[in-house]
Amino acid sequence: MSDKPASPRVKLRRLPDRGRYDAASLHAVLDAGLVCHVGFVMGDTPMVIPTAYWREGEHLYIHGSSKSGMAMALAKGAPACVTVTMLDALVLARSAFHHSVNYRSAVILGRFFEVTDPDAKLRGLEAFMERIAKGRWAEIRGPNKQELKATKLLGLELGEASVKIRSGPPKDDDEDMALRCWAGIVPVREVYETPIPDPLLAKGIALPGYLKIS
Amino acid sequence: MSDKPASPRVKLRRLPDRGRYDAASLHAVLDAGLVCHVGFVMGDTPMVIPTAYWREGEHLYIHGSSKSGMAMALAKGAPACVTVTMLDALVLARSAFHHSVNYRSAVILGRFFEVTDPDAKLRGLEAFMERIAKGRWAEIRGPNKQELKATKLLGLELGEASVKIRSGPPKDDDEDMALRCWAGIVPVREVYETPIPDPLLAKGIALPGYLKIS
Repeated sequence: MSDKPASPRVKLRRLPDRGRYDAASLHAVLDAGLVCHVGFVMGDTPMVIPTAYWREGEHLYIHGSSKSGMAMALAKGAPACVTVTMLDALVLARSAFHHSVNYRSAVILGRFFEVTDPDAKLRGLEAFMERIAKGRWAEIRGPNKQELKATKLLGLELGEASVKIRSGPPKDDDEDMALRCWAGIVPVREVYETPIPDPLLAKGIALPGYLKIS
Repeated sequence: MSDKPASPRVKLRRLPDRGRYDAASLHAVLDAGLVCHVGFVMGDTPMVIPTAYWREGEHLYIHGSSKSGMAMALAKGAPACVTVTMLDALVLARSAFHHSVNYRSAVILGRFFEVTDPDAKLRGLEAFMERIAKGRWAEIRGPNKQELKATKLLGLELGEASVKIRSGPPKDDDEDMALRCWAGIVPVREVYETPIPDPLLAKGIALPGYLKIS
């Protein structure tokens, strides 16, 4: 990716100063999230489905049941849009009009390809697990042949994408600055809380280090 | 809405036991969120854009700049899909295959209508503000004629929708239960943190009660 939009389709027209097109900005947004929203078209109906994703280099990956309608449509190369959004704050201005939110979002357009080679699929699923819980792959039972067959792994090149970011305090009109009303931001954050063991967990199995909250 | 899918388009085929179609389940998911992902089609390209929303009765509303490409397309009645997703937990199973996430999501299909009556627009924006910060509408400067004209308010009937929910611990295969690996869930929560005043906030303006974190 370069600093310029890869196509007119991903060029931001509204508030273009919030837009970025470089790989570092895109990677930063993608690496901060876990769930994306995938858009594709069924007949003339747009469908938007949430799913977990991960990034490796210049590709984003998702996986799902081989029988899922979305996975089947995407594997056939249907045009897709993947959007990742992090809400960072409510922005409370002095005028209704300038209320906003701080956020980071990425929009990627393209067509997925299916990863069919069993070894490549295994490596992909391992990379996903290791991103979430480093070291866990070695502890669990890996996918058997049947499970691997029941799973579709789909990749999307990060070639045509845009990032949009709003940050900072509210921006009110000059004539509103004297209003006696509170203005500022309310930060929003996604937090991972203390893990809860499976009620069926055998005794004597300690919480692994990769899940300890610092 | 009834307990049955309103159409084949919103009927869950994969893991149908996670699906719900009643109004109370849909309202509960929508009222817990703030940002939705709106899907629509531009040419043959699906576009997925995040935006804030609110619910009033059997309608979901969004607003945006009158000049935004999405608002213009939706105001013309383009087929749309609105998806709201809350990530509730990572689900760590004993096998790679049964790893999952707990979530609540809602998918609504339909065509938006534009609310053009200025009084109705004002009441809609007030309802949105009051949902986020009860009492704030009376403190701020309301939208003037020009700002109201620059804002599109769009509604969508909650007629054709589905809710999908996963909750609870991992569900492993019987033969994996003896594995000596930790299993359970890691709860994820979106938290609102201590508000940060605008650096330009005049002295002596206290944090309003509706922003105090209990």
